[in-house]
Amino acid sequence: MRIYGEPVSRLIEEFSRLPGIGGKSAQRLAFYIINLPEERAEALAGAILSAKRNVKYCGVCSSLTDSDPCVICANVKRDAKIIMVVEDPRDMAAYERTREYYGLYHVLHGAISPMHGIGPNDLTIAALLKRLQSAQTDEVIIATNPNVEGEATALYIAKILKPTGIKVTRIAHGVPVGGDLEFVDEVTLSRALEGRREI
Amino acid sequence: MRIYGEPVSRLIEEFSRLPGIGGKSAQRLAFYIINLPEERAEALAGAILSAKRNVKYCGVCSSLTDSDPCVICANVKRDAKIIMVVEDPRDMAAYERTREYYGLYHVLHGAISPMHGIGPNDLTIAALLKRLQSAQTDEVIIATNPNVEGEATALYIAKILKPTGIKVTRIAHGVPVGGDLEFVDEVTLSRALEGRREI
Repeated sequence: MRIYGEPVSRLIEEFSRLPGIGGKSAQRLAFYIINLPEERAEALAGAILSAKRNVKYCGVCSSLTDSDPCVICANVKRDAKIIMVVEDPRDMAAYERTREYYGLYHVLHGAISPMHGIGPNDLTIAALLKRLQSAQTDEVIIATNPNVEGEATALYIAKILKPTGIKVTRIAHGVPVGGDLEFVDEVTLSRALEGRREI
Repeated sequence: MRIYGEPVSRLIEEFSRLPGIGGKSAQRLAFYIINLPEERAEALAGAILSAKRNVKYCGVCSSLTDSDPCVICANVKRDAKIIMVVEDPRDMAAYERTREYYGLYHVLHGAISPMHGIGPNDLTIAALLKRLQSAQTDEVIIATNPNVEGEATALYIAKILKPTGIKVTRIAHGVPVGGDLEFVDEVTLSRALEGRREI
């Protein structure tokens, strides 16, 4: 698309590399940027750099944060004796929106998936075990996604936590099987939390 | 979404302000950025700033360009006696992809639309008239969109160019090549019939 000049072509190319953005959308976004006031374009570019540079993983729960430990791990009002294991920070955000969970989290950053070459060592399971050794934990709630990978991960974690004697529960199958936690409504998420069972 | 920390929340907010990107997509994009290598994030941010800062309008055809005049207006091999009037630089790009048009362009940056408060003075029609005074032009091809606004704009331009004596043409309406007659609307079918040619 040389006819627009190099800066526009480059922006279109950069946008089209983002997930879920095709060629037409990339073009539309690029033209939108060009017509923005300069300070708005600078705000967007700055937000990209700032997020990339200042976001790190929480040393306790492995969630994304700009402070270490993250605001949830640092919150003394939360029940540190309960840890909910989730695949992704977005799943944590989804449970936070229910306003019914006051324990801590542990973010795995994925699920065991032999199909995609993801094994237990690619997740933060070792960090979870280490965390459980030093912390006084009553219960580990496994809230991985209700799909094949999530279930496999839940069973795997339940198995390796068995010797510790810590109560391990799984959120109830009130969540639709085959779905993605991130898109489940708050009421369903709350029901699933209430109906959790020991595994 | 304070739990992700300020930089991530700000990036999600900036993304969700872009056209066609909702809250979920913005969140997905933000997480994608955070997991990018730093140089890729910098490339995206740099492309945004560069496009915003270095892109200007061609002094001749009003298209977007980083050089003035743009590569098309500056190309001496193109037929400067024919000017195609389009609404948007993207329409120009669409005609360039045909590789069958070798004249120049004039970009209106919109179409006359009383509904949206866009009148002839909001477009580059005055610049077109000025351009025609100094250039030796044989034909002006009006390639505005085949909708109400595009047709109104075509008629308006044809009317004000009448006194100049320059030949003014409109791209043909008809059935799209590769389409299925069954799904073509009645107006288009009528236009295609009217515009039939001997073969």
